[in-house]
Amino acid sequence: MGSLGISSRLGTHPGPFSLFVAITIGADLRADGFGENPFYHCLVAESLPGPGESQAGPCVVGYGLYYFIYSTWKGRNVYLEDIYVKPEYQGQGIGSKIIKKVAEVALDKGCSQFRLSVLDWNKRAMDLYKALGAQDLTEAEGWHSFRFEGEVMRKLAGK
Amino acid sequence: MGSLGISSRLGTHPGPFSLFVAITIGADLRADGFGENPFYHCLVAESLPGPGESQAGPCVVGYGLYYFIYSTWKGRNVYLEDIYVKPEYQGQGIGSKIIKKVAEVALDKGCSQFRLSVLDWNKRAMDLYKALGAQDLTEAEGWHSFRFEGEVMRKLAGK
Repeated sequence: MGSLGISSRLGTHPGPFSLFVAITIGADLRADGFGENPFYHCLVAESLPGPGESQAGPCVVGYGLYYFIYSTWKGRNVYLEDIYVKPEYQGQGIGSKIIKKVAEVALDKGCSQFRLSVLDWNKRAMDLYKALGAQDLTEAEGWHSFRFEGEVMRKLAGK
Repeated sequence: MGSLGISSRLGTHPGPFSLFVAITIGADLRADGFGENPFYHCLVAESLPGPGESQAGPCVVGYGLYYFIYSTWKGRNVYLEDIYVKPEYQGQGIGSKIIKKVAEVALDKGCSQFRLSVLDWNKRAMDLYKALGAQDLTEAEGWHSFRFEGEVMRKLAGK
């Protein structure tokens, strides 16, 4: 049985992104995350071969994609945009490990908060975040998330 | 009667921040916004003297503080963290002008979305965003905002 490690891949290794490059925006995702001023950072959870086991290389079984946000009141914060664990690896605490590693990064970078969003039907995720001590700001304070996009945004911008 | 202009202050001019430096985090706010890789950007609305009027310099009457966020599905987006207009200048369309300018910045930077959050008791702001074409994602899709902070975050990080 192999072990699981959470590592930060801020170099140029393309591996961790094979999970979603194909279904999203391809080259942009790579350029935006691995340029001089990256728009996001990514932690990957890897399954490593156990003693005596052979494996071509580490196998990515989950990831957490985060970036830095800013509060006029609280300064630097971290936002976890996306967290994913392959179905066959769920229930092993990998999601919690990714969240704990993000909290570590946040503290190391002088952040006072770590935020994320979740859909209200995703009880499993909500329960996990609450169990780990997160506060539901929409429930507690009434925060609503708004979005402008596409044609609306172009019209707003007068373009 | 003077005119109102929205400008982007990405230099070292300290003026626009006098509104809130005193009540937040002082030097950090300046360092985080005006370093090589700024954590945020700020637009300021200024009241300019009219013909024949004298004024020591532009007078800041509002601001919009934004930063870039990232979606695995949609790529680069802009997030408007904070928007403020001095009470005596409200009702003149300055908030809308700031929002329109942020939409312009978003498009110029290749963003497909422009997001923000609002408290559910702030009907005036909600009505404005909806009138400008924004979608309430909490209402429409059930998005909830979560936060880890302080002792909880340190415990998560094992520190």
